[in-house]
Formats: sequence, C-alpha cells, structure tokens
Amino acid sequence: MPLNGLNLIGGRTLESGKTFRAVNPATSQHLEPPFHEATLDQVDQAMKQAEAAFVEYRAKSPKERAAFLEAIAAAISTNDELVDRAGQESGLPQARLQGERGRTVGQLRMFAKLIEDGSWVDARIDHADPARKPVPKPDTRRMLIPLGPVAIFAASNFPLAFSIAGGDTASALAAGCTVVLKTHPGHPGASELAAAIIAQAAASTGMPAGVFSMLHARDYAIAIALVKHPLCRAVGFTGSLKGGRALFDAAASRPDPIPVYAEMGSFNPVFILPGAMAERGKQIAEGLKASVTMGTGQFCTNPGVVLGLEGDSSRAFLEHAAASFVEAPPATMLYSGLRDSYEAGAARVKKVAGVRVVAESKTPASAAQTQVGAKLFATDAKTFLSQPSLHEEVFGPATIFVSGSSTEELEKIAAGLEGNLTATLHGTEKDLQDHRKLVAILERKVGRLLFNGFPTGVEVCPSMQHGGPYPATTDSRTTSVGTAAIDRFARPICYQDFPQAALPDELKDANPRGIWRIVDGQRKQREG
Amino acid sequence: MPLNGLNLIGGRTLESGKTFRAVNPATSQHLEPPFHEATLDQVDQAMKQAEAAFVEYRAKSPKERAAFLEAIAAAISTNDELVDRAGQESGLPQARLQGERGRTVGQLRMFAKLIEDGSWVDARIDHADPARKPVPKPDTRRMLIPLGPVAIFAASNFPLAFSIAGGDTASALAAGCTVVLKTHPGHPGASELAAAIIAQAAASTGMPAGVFSMLHARDYAIAIALVKHPLCRAVGFTGSLKGGRALFDAAASRPDPIPVYAEMGSFNPVFILPGAMAERGKQIAEGLKASVTMGTGQFCTNPGVVLGLEGDSSRAFLEHAAASFVEAPPATMLYSGLRDSYEAGAARVKKVAGVRVVAESKTPASAAQTQVGAKLFATDAKTFLSQPSLHEEVFGPATIFVSGSSTEELEKIAAGLEGNLTATLHGTEKDLQDHRKLVAILERKVGRLLFNGFPTGVEVCPSMQHGGPYPATTDSRTTSVGTAAIDRFARPICYQDFPQAALPDELKDANPRGIWRIVDGQRKQREG
Repeated sequence: MPLNGLNLIGGRTLESGKTFRAVNPATSQHLEPPFHEATLDQVDQAMKQAEAAFVEYRAKSPKERAAFLEAIAAAISTNDELVDRAGQESGLPQARLQGERGRTVGQLRMFAKLIEDGSWVDARIDHADPARKPVPKPDTRRMLIPLGPVAIFAASNFPLAFSIAGGDTASALAAGCTVVLKTHPGHPGASELAAAIIAQAAASTGMPAGVFSMLHARDYAIAIALVKHPLCRAVGFTGSLKGGRALFDAAASRPDPIPVYAEMGSFNPVFILPGAMAERGKQIAEGLKASVTMGTGQFCTNPGVVLGLEGDSSRAFLEHAAASFVEAPPATMLYSGLRDSYEAGAARVKKVAGVRVVAESKTPASAAQTQVGAKLFATDAKTFLSQPSLHEEVFGPATIFVSGSSTEELEKIAAGLEGNLTATLHGTEKDLQDHRKLVAILERKVGRLLFNGFPTGVEVCPSMQHGGPYPATTDSRTTSVGTAAIDRFARPICYQDFPQAALPDELKDANPRGIWRIVDGQRKQREG
Repeated sequence: MPLNGLNLIGGRTLESGKTFRAVNPATSQHLEPPFHEATLDQVDQAMKQAEAAFVEYRAKSPKERAAFLEAIAAAISTNDELVDRAGQESGLPQARLQGERGRTVGQLRMFAKLIEDGSWVDARIDHADPARKPVPKPDTRRMLIPLGPVAIFAASNFPLAFSIAGGDTASALAAGCTVVLKTHPGHPGASELAAAIIAQAAASTGMPAGVFSMLHARDYAIAIALVKHPLCRAVGFTGSLKGGRALFDAAASRPDPIPVYAEMGSFNPVFILPGAMAERGKQIAEGLKASVTMGTGQFCTNPGVVLGLEGDSSRAFLEHAAASFVEAPPATMLYSGLRDSYEAGAARVKKVAGVRVVAESKTPASAAQTQVGAKLFATDAKTFLSQPSLHEEVFGPATIFVSGSSTEELEKIAAGLEGNLTATLHGTEKDLQDHRKLVAILERKVGRLLFNGFPTGVEVCPSMQHGGPYPATTDSRTTSVGTAAIDRFARPICYQDFPQAALPDELKDANPRGIWRIVDGQRKQREG
C-alpha cells in the first residue's frame, strides 16, 4: 500500500502545511513520503469525533467490541509490509519485529477474550432489604464503565507493541473508550499502516469511524493540546520521564484534572547475593550482558545498575562480564537523538571520580548506522551513594556494577532508590532468607520483583505488573502490560433501585453474561 | 476522660504555642479545653513515626490488623462520651450521632472482615511454562500491597463516620497503611476522644504506636506540609472543592506526585419524569423536603437541583413542596462559617433574574443557635442554562426546581452538568424506557444513579460507589464508601520466579489463606 503521509481523523485523511520525514537509522537515509504534522484544529476535530463516536461505541456489546479487536489482530498478523516498514524506520531486526508483531496480535486477542468473558467489570450486587431497621436497605449494583475519549502517545522503542495498535490502544478500545493517538515521529510510516488497519477493522465490524484517529506531531504544543482538550478523559503514554511528566503536569492543571498513565524510564537494579555470586557468577555475567544489550538496550526494563558485595567472587564476575561486553557487537539505536543521549549519558558516568570503564564493545560503532557499543562501568557503593548523576537512567546498552562492603550498604542503596519498574535478586534460596530486609525494602520501590532472572522480556498475562512508584510511572496503582491494563480506562458506577429491564446485562439478576460477580458479599458465577 | 487538647504523635501527646477552642453551634458558647495547633515540626515527626511504624505494621498478618480494627470498633460502640462531645461540637442531634456511631463501628468491622477474608488483594498467579517457544514462560504472581504512610483529612459533617476513625482511616489501616490524620477544627474534642481510642486499641493489640497520629490544625500551611511531606504516599479528604483542589494541586506538584482522593461538593440533580410527576408528585415533594433538610442539608449527596417538565403536574408538585418547606423548622448548622456560606449562597441564587423564592421555613432562624431555614427556589431551564452561578453548590437545606419546556431541554441541562456524586430519576418504568438518552447522559456524569429514591443516605456495602467525575472527586476511579474504598491505599506488585517459601501466603500454591484468586486465567478459591 503506498503511504499517503496524512493524519487520519474519523476515517478521513487530512493534510497540513508542515511535514517531516522518517529516517532509517541503519543507513541515515531519509525515507519517503513526507508526513503531515497535525494542526491544533485537527486535534480538536479528532477529539470531537472521538466524543461523538464514544456515545455509539460504548453501546456496542462486548462481543461486537471483541470482534473489532480480533479484526485488527487478524489483519496485523498477516501484514508483512508493516513489519518491513517498522524495520526501515527503527533499525530493529526483522526477527525481533516479527516477535513484536506476535506480541501485538496476542495482546489484542487477550483483551478481546477478556471482554468477551466479561468478568473484568468487577460487578457487585447487594440486594434490597426493605425490612431492615432503622432504615430499609436499597438495592445497589456496581460495575466498571468506560471513561470516554482518551489520548494515547505511542512509544519509540516498540513500534508495534507499544505504538498504534499496541497495549494502550488495545486496552482502551477494549474498555469501551475511543482513542486519539499521537504517533511517535520515529516510525510514522509503520504508524500509518497500523492506523489504516484499525480504520478498516472499524469499518468492517460496524464501529463508528471516530473510534480511532491518528495524528502525527513533533510539536510539543500538539501533545499538550491533546491532554488539555476538554473532551479528553485520560492519557496513556510510554516514553521519557521528561515527556511523561510534562503530560502529567498539563493534565493536573486542567480545570478538571484527568488521569495520566505515563510509563517512564527505570533503572531496574539487579542485586547479586553472595551465594549466587560464588556459585554461578559467570553464568549471571553472561545473562546480564544479554539482557543489557538486547534490542540495543532500548527497553524500559533494561538493567541499569548491578549490585554485589566486594570480594573475589565479584571480581571474577566482573572479569567474566567484561569479557562478554567486549565481544558485544555495536548495534543501531532507534534514532540519532537516542544515540546522542546515550553517548552523553555514558560520558557523564565516565567522568565521575571513582567510576571506571570495565569494558566496551571492541568493534567501533558506525556513526552512519546510528550504532553504539555496549558499556560496562564499575564503582563502589560510597561513590554511587554520593553521586546523584549515577542515579539517572542511561537509555541504551550500558550498566554499572556497584560493589558494597556490606549487606547494610546494599540495603542503604536500595532504600535510597527512586521508584522502579523492576528489581532483581540473584541468589540461592538461603540468600533470599538471609536478605529478607533487602526484599522488604525493594518491595516498596518497584512494581515487579524477580528472582534469578532478568527484567527484560515482560510477560503479557493477568499477573503481570508493568508499573511502579514514581518516576517509573505517574500512577503506581496501574499497569500498562497484562489484562489489568484495561482498568486504567474505566471507572465504577452504581445503580440504585433500578428495574431489571433498565440495568446493564452484567448487573441483571439472571446474569445473562455468566460473569463472576460479588452478590451479597459472595463471589458467584451463576445465580441459584 | 478529661480532654487534654494536645496533638497525638506516635502515642505521645504534644503541645504547641498556639491554641483554639471549639464552639457549640447550638449555643454559640466556646467549649473547654483549648486545643493545640500542630507545628510544622510536629507534621514531620508524625510522618517519620508513620514511616517507621509502617515497616512493622505492614508485616502484621491480616488477622492481627483485623483485631486492631475490631478493638477500635468495640471501644467506639460503647463510648457515650464521644457521642456527647460530638453533639456539643456539631449541634447534631444525639439520635443522628448514635446512628453515625453505628455506621462508624459497622465500617470498621466491615473492613476487618474484608481483610480477614483476604480476597480483596486480587491475587493472580500464572504458572511457568519452561517448554514454551520461542522463550520459556516465567512464573508470575501479583497481589495488592499497601502504599505506605498516608495523610487523612477529617470532614466536618460526619464527626464520627468521616472523621478520626471514619471510612478513610478504616480503609487505610485495613490496607496496611499507617495514618497521620488532620482533625477538622469543628470537633477537636470528639477527635481527641476517638484518637485516644485508636491509640489504646493499637497498644492493646500490639500495633506500633506510630500507626496512627492526630494533628489539630487550622492553618492551611500545615495541611499542605502534610501533603508535601516526602514520606506521605497518598491523601484522603472529604470537604469543599476549594480545599480538595488545593490538596490535589499540592500533591501533583510534588517532585514525586502522589494520589489524592478528595471527595468534594456535589449538586446531585433529581429528575422527575412526567409519569411519576403526574402519578405521585405530592409524595415526591415530601420525600424531597425530607432529603433536602436531613441533617440541615449538610450532606455531600444533598439534592441541590430538581428538574421536571413544565405543566400542571409540576405546578402541583411545587405547591406541595412549598407547603412542606414552609413547615420545615430552622435547624443548627455545624459552625457559623457554614451558616454564613449558606446564607450568602442563597442570597446569590435569589438575586438572579428569573429565579423566584417558592418557600422558606416560616419559623425565624435563631442566630445564637447558628440556625438556618430551608429554602426552595424555582426557575426555568433557560435561566438555569444561562446562569453559571446557579450551578454552584449551596451547602445546606436549599434546592432549586428547574422546569424545562421539553425532554430535549432537560437533556441539554444534563449534558452540561459537571461531575456529580449522584443523579436521581423519579419515574415509572415506562418513563425510564422513554428517557434512555437522558440515562445515558447521566451515566457519564455521576458515580451513582438512583431510581425512585433520594441520594442522601449512602449505603455502606461492596456495591456502593461514593465518588464521581471531577469536581465530585479528584479520582473518579475510586470510592470513599464501601469495601472498594480499600483499593485507594494499595498497589499491585508482581513476584517473578520466587520460591514458594519467599512468597506472601496469598500467592503460595497451597493457598493457605483460602482466598479467591485468578490462577492461569481461571477464578479459583482452592487449589486442586
């Protein structure tokens, strides 16, 4: 399909005066066609269409909404052009993108299944008791309903799974919200292809055209206008701390504040406890290198700091890790801006007195291919504790090993950490028992705690928590991965003393949808 | 027990230089003793104690925490001094306060039962699949954990049920959070008595003293310092829009924003549909008067506007209502500031061209008794739509009847409403069918929709939703009444590949707590 470079608003394509072009980071070549940047008026149009469509869309049955999500999934699963273009625009290898396509399709189908099942609405029924003293008890029934039109901001690092038809869009559409999506300018072509798929799926399954709109924008003012638009009811975002915080601040300063679900950077500390360090330091070193360099380190869950106790085992571990990092081939980053940030961040770390460069990819990085090498730094706990600049995420394939002189020193570092998406412990079971205090400290800092694994590779399932205390996200009560991501786009409503016929099916006595509910305090699937 | 007038921090009582005294609004007399206003240093001490206590408190078993809540409930249920003092400080009748005590005790016991039951933690388990391609599936397990120390701001209008040991405190303590509570200066003596009960219950059930602290303050700077304190993890508040928004803004502008659950004013529109107006206008008029004047109109769910179609039935309704309002005796408000606001608000409404005073309590209000009379205004839809000042809540026993010339005009008013806690429809079942569009509009505006009832009197149960879109609250996804209120003080954490012994009981394969969980996508109570 030839790309048109236009914005997509309520099923219509719109141009503007101002354009930009995508760049293939692996060649530094500009790609065709030029893409039109949305205007403020187009933001308004898209939001108004989303509002008009919401009235119709939220009245669709869960089965109809599921069919819409399934249609998107089916079309993406066979669209190789999408994967090709995402590769050209991101420099990510095709195998990785095929995997990411599988994940994208899987997410859409997971949410389709979730809403067909229907129990996610958390239905609760308390029957009336007219005889209760001193006052009769009314009949009350509660379930989740969609928030309204929402704005989603696509991420750069997952051009499929956290972008146009990614997890945020899938969960918002599943909840019954309509979506206005701002593309990431790193992959506008892949965005257009995915948006066209959504628009076509909407048409073929009878959804209103305004259910999904897509705007290209590089201008900060467009992003803020979306968040500030009176009709916007919530915001989903994956990206930098600076970007996420700006959207949060804009939303909080509205006359009517709205929630912002920003999943931002994270440091993802990895603690190697003494037993594991002695038993299998070499194996952990190899796993660490694989995790740090995976996808050129461009994951929110990339392990940015590794901690262990000083001693012979740690020295051996670091030697193994160094040997492994040296062999890591340089790799292409998503765009030159990220490469520049990575190099600047690495230079900042290197400059700190007490930090040494343990290893760097030995093969030189190619500037024309927007490549960077892997980097392994090391320092001691005292330096790390005293240098706030070492606590900033360096987005890319770099990590720093911090050696502490005692468990207490490691606990002190843990206690001083800001919020993170993850923390990891490598240890024997005895290590874990001996470090209960460290575990208790880390529980307060993160959304996910791993044992003997690596944080990269986030499983998509009901029990996943991809979130964490600020600055990992702006709302630690939510997740952007897994079935619970749908909860971000819904709120409860209670119907009091409503006649059966006027209640949503989910709340009728007969339970026609067969969902799990809490009825008079008891969890039940069927009545009787 | 003689009152000491001191702040209570981690079990110790502390004085300050500055004091104030409570006033009995029914007599305008100052009450003994003077109460000490907390200092900024005391805010810091209380939060640090809450943090230290949190580490210990969150490790307590649900059974131990439940015993703590039960001990508070038991002591409150028999403490008549608390009810007496609350009566002196609020002017509320003893019968009402005894009912409120019952509600307070009921809430504490409801949360005790909820955490003993344990299923509220929303446990989810997805087992590993080492054979999965292309990558092995890890074992992931997720549950809710408490946020940390929280700040609670007591309300004036429920000196027991939404104050010291009220719903916010009960749900936060149940979740495992420690609490620093700012009293409402309207009832400092009742606050001291309730706080002493909590402190004693903490001591007798082995809880750390810092689990609960109480600060008296009238100074805005103290409230902001609590919200801005680095250790504070969330805020609960019931009160005015102005107050709630100030706390929200303070929390949102922190270096690390925290959630604020502010339940603020609400307008609570009541729509009387034509069938009901014709069939039983008189009965609705009497119910309306009872709802508007209950507790001198000092409820968040007080019906501030009543809407119907113009015509004979409406005129008859208004005559009935007028006759009823005229007979309503003047009643004491909680404090003179509220009385002044009410009178100013009523004067503002009265001044609007096109608004008429239909009825006022015929007995004059006594200034010395801080009394106000009930007021019934009327206007037409065009005036209401064009006058923003009529859309501001008048807190107290006043309401305005708005007559529309068509259903469309009523829908237009509904569509223009801001967020509300409730909306009510009086109608026949046929009315409800004929007004589906109106219902659909109202669903987007409120947290609770009532049919043929009145919004005052909020049932405490799992299916209650006491919340709503801004400005009813700052977070429409939450409720401050009912079991779901506990969710405000918790967030999910995921454990990946943790050994059984290191997992919380809620997530162990054997399910020793016997709770409901989602295991590999299926809802289950017991394994096997």
